[in-house]
Amino acid sequence: MNLKKLFPISLAALLLLSGCAQSDLAEGKNTEAASENGQATVETIKGTDVFAPHAQVNHEPIPLRVERTGPSEVHVEMTAQVTDIEIDKGLMYKTWNFNGEAPGPVVVVNEGDVINFTLKNMDPAVPHSMDFHAVHAAPSEKFTDVLPNEEGTFTYPANNPGVFMYHCGTAPVLSHIANGMHGTIIVKPKDGYPTDQEVDREFVIIQNEWYNYNDLDDMTFGEPNQVVFSAKALNKGDINTNGTTYSLKDSPLQAKVGEKIRFYLNNVGPNEISSFHVTGTLFDTVYLDGNPKNILDGMQTVMLPASGGAVVEFTVTEAGTYSMVTHQFDHATMGAVGYIEVTE
Amino acid sequence: MNLKKLFPISLAALLLLSGCAQSDLAEGKNTEAASENGQATVETIKGTDVFAPHAQVNHEPIPLRVERTGPSEVHVEMTAQVTDIEIDKGLMYKTWNFNGEAPGPVVVVNEGDVINFTLKNMDPAVPHSMDFHAVHAAPSEKFTDVLPNEEGTFTYPANNPGVFMYHCGTAPVLSHIANGMHGTIIVKPKDGYPTDQEVDREFVIIQNEWYNYNDLDDMTFGEPNQVVFSAKALNKGDINTNGTTYSLKDSPLQAKVGEKIRFYLNNVGPNEISSFHVTGTLFDTVYLDGNPKNILDGMQTVMLPASGGAVVEFTVTEAGTYSMVTHQFDHATMGAVGYIEVTE
Amino acid sequence: MNLKKLFPISLAALLLLSGCAQSDLAEGKNTEAASENGQATVETIKGTDVFAPHAQVNHEPIPLRVERTGPSEVHVEMTAQVTDIEIDKGLMYKTWNFNGEAPGPVVVVNEGDVINFTLKNMDPAVPHSMDFHAVHAAPSEKFTDVLPNEEGTFTYPANNPGVFMYHCGTAPVLSHIANGMHGTIIVKPKDGYPTDQEVDREFVIIQNEWYNYNDLDDMTFGEPNQVVFSAKALNKGDINTNGTTYSLKDSPLQAKVGEKIRFYLNNVGPNEISSFHVTGTLFDTVYLDGNPKNILDGMQTVMLPASGGAVVEFTVTEAGTYSMVTHQFDHATMGAVGYIEVTE
Repeated sequence: MNLKKLFPISLAALLLLSGCAQSDLAEGKNTEAASENGQATVETIKGTDVFAPHAQVNHEPIPLRVERTGPSEVHVEMTAQVTDIEIDKGLMYKTWNFNGEAPGPVVVVNEGDVINFTLKNMDPAVPHSMDFHAVHAAPSEKFTDVLPNEEGTFTYPANNPGVFMYHCGTAPVLSHIANGMHGTIIVKPKDGYPTDQEVDREFVIIQNEWYNYNDLDDMTFGEPNQVVFSAKALNKGDINTNGTTYSLKDSPLQAKVGEKIRFYLNNVGPNEISSFHVTGTLFDTVYLDGNPKNILDGMQTVMLPASGGAVVEFTVTEAGTYSMVTHQFDHATMGAVGYIEVTE
Repeated sequence: MNLKKLFPISLAALLLLSGCAQSDLAEGKNTEAASENGQATVETIKGTDVFAPHAQVNHEPIPLRVERTGPSEVHVEMTAQVTDIEIDKGLMYKTWNFNGEAPGPVVVVNEGDVINFTLKNMDPAVPHSMDFHAVHAAPSEKFTDVLPNEEGTFTYPANNPGVFMYHCGTAPVLSHIANGMHGTIIVKPKDGYPTDQEVDREFVIIQNEWYNYNDLDDMTFGEPNQVVFSAKALNKGDINTNGTTYSLKDSPLQAKVGEKIRFYLNNVGPNEISSFHVTGTLFDTVYLDGNPKNILDGMQTVMLPASGGAVVEFTVTEAGTYSMVTHQFDHATMGAVGYIEVTE
Repeated sequence: MNLKKLFPISLAALLLLSGCAQSDLAEGKNTEAASENGQATVETIKGTDVFAPHAQVNHEPIPLRVERTGPSEVHVEMTAQVTDIEIDKGLMYKTWNFNGEAPGPVVVVNEGDVINFTLKNMDPAVPHSMDFHAVHAAPSEKFTDVLPNEEGTFTYPANNPGVFMYHCGTAPVLSHIANGMHGTIIVKPKDGYPTDQEVDREFVIIQNEWYNYNDLDDMTFGEPNQVVFSAKALNKGDINTNGTTYSLKDSPLQAKVGEKIRFYLNNVGPNEISSFHVTGTLFDTVYLDGNPKNILDGMQTVMLPASGGAVVEFTVTEAGTYSMVTHQFDHATMGAVGYIEVTE
């Protein structure tokens, strides 16, 4: 049962009848103009009003910086921002995010790297932090809050290969993640994957959910409004990603007949499990959490816990369109669908 | 919270008070007589009225046809139908289905087979299609719609052994699956399973959910009304199944003390994960998605994603009754329970 | 959407307006004094009134008895009780439980042991039973009801190593589990784990959900009120546990820098999946269901089905506080958070 659908308008009316203040339960949509980017007719925020200190904020994306500073040392610089992002057709969400993207840009390092990480916080009002699932570090010392308009630098090793979530770890964590502060860090295995030579094309695919804007109660107890996939191009063997985010519903991935495709998958949640599936093919090889040792063969669907990752590889044998979904079809219906266009 | 339970009647009354049309939200049950099969006192449809073009339709089940046409070639013929099926005690559902069963009949082929597949569509009004998770094919070319009263033939290889879901892939996919168009295809591994010699008895067990009849909103945002298991007998080593569907709650499976039992499991969803468990025993061996290489040992419970499969093997050491459940006990309480009667 | 949050008071008012009896839907909290333990100001029961035969019952915990009676034979004695337990800050729940704890005490036996098990039922009104996931037994004969004020003895082998759920199996099973009758039995592998020599510290961590008191409808269709972790100390290599239960939110586990920690994990549900994660580290080794053969390497998060277990091992490399969560952050927000304090 979904009150959002059942009571698009009548709930407020009912509650007025019963003497309960409408403001406590406002499920209506505010469709004010997003003046900063000129899309005056676009619906901007669902749920409650914009968090006041963010009302006039819409940061341009600051690019991720990844710079190799030694054979096993890399400097990564990211920025916590507040940026309007279109999360569904015509629906803008004033995301809290990293580097102007939600999910944030893909970070790629090598197994054994020490990461010198700098977090700049452009948010005028809210502290933010960074929790990399890829590293060993005392969270109370190194996943700590960076105050508004400040920056912090932290050092930790990335000794385990795989596909890992990163997210803001500032309380309430669920709000920070669900408002958009999540992404994927890939730690490339020192000896590669056993199947590296077979792979023709690589993409990063991230699943996440959206809830009513900055509404912790909806995030905790509600159903998602949207469940979506984002794709990021990944230059094979390149430590720098050019993390173009786009809607997988409208912009299919491209591949050629007979190619083996590798997806680096990450389900950043914040709440739901994923049952990731590509139609018309099977996953020849699955590496759970992207670790070369955790192999499954010939899978129709790979299940990802909240925050979980995987590397999946599959072959597209015929020309045409293949789709990807979470086979939890309620979530596919909420938006978690993407396409691959395969040509001769 | 379940509005279905909380508001059996009062919701409509409330909404009338608030000026919202009752018809938009009708959760009441229509208990009209199912005149075609003479069960005048049986409750027929939950949720909205019957989809008009189906009102007078109740097809007799057309048997699945599987015919071997070569050492690595098999012809499979299935029929999309509309059939009243009793999905819960005294509750008829006008299912959209394959071959008059929901879940549909089990299809068994061999690893390496080319499948020549014909889909006949008896539905007078709705296009249907077939998406086999077992095959490699461009979905846009070979999982395509077959129009009412027409048929289509498609060819594709089944090169991966295992236990795979099939389902109608016509939009909205969730409606087609949740109305009953799902089932299991088993691709027998060329070299068998390492444990083949130990197994005395085999069954196919399928988990699925039911929602309000043909109600996409309930299917997307609601909780299931029923979560159920179906069992299908499987003649070991036989390519033809005699897929008798029966309620696992009322008709226990039969086995003898000391036997090793193999289940081919498939969770066809459409939305929920399964935590499959048999009481009083453990799974000696689990093959995830039924692939002989994906082995887990000594598991109490096997988790299946939506659409996921498994082969599980266990021994019943004493005479008595064993039960199977999804250990997500809310779903077991909704019906996902079955029994095995073990005799000397 | 959560009616519990949306309608703290107004639902009753609304329903009175519509002529529906308030008593059918009572979601209000009864805050009567818990006179037996003198905590007059503590909120005692959520949901409906206390089950009448239990109103005056609050059993002192009876310790678990585990006695080795032979090289491969152990006697285990447990007691079904009714005990007030503080399940959230200031919130008492009149649990149905084993030995006065919910989750119950950890039982540890050896692979290959025959368990002679005695269940004493102190509940004045309700039959109870014991379903050990670790054993082979005909449930209809050996997981049977023990009537109030009676006891039963049952014998079965524990031949599979691992981390297994136990629970009351008396109908309605969901009520018995959700009211508190669950816990963990560890079957120590005959040859140990390959990583035994690396481990410095062991804990048992159990995840469970709480619903409205003894409210089967809420347990079946509702969202949890609380999702929580409990920790139990485990003396390494010792068959007797001293199962101190405490809140992981308020009493962090203790460890030293550089130590490898092993968790015996069990998600006793009753309904939800767990995505178990420890911040600032990765699981070097995961043994699914605790079987030494089911190895995963370098995982950020381990997914547990309802009832599922795992052994996970990780290293804490720096001084500070590490947290553990289910990364399904709605459930973490409901309480499933714990801490590890790591000192030099």
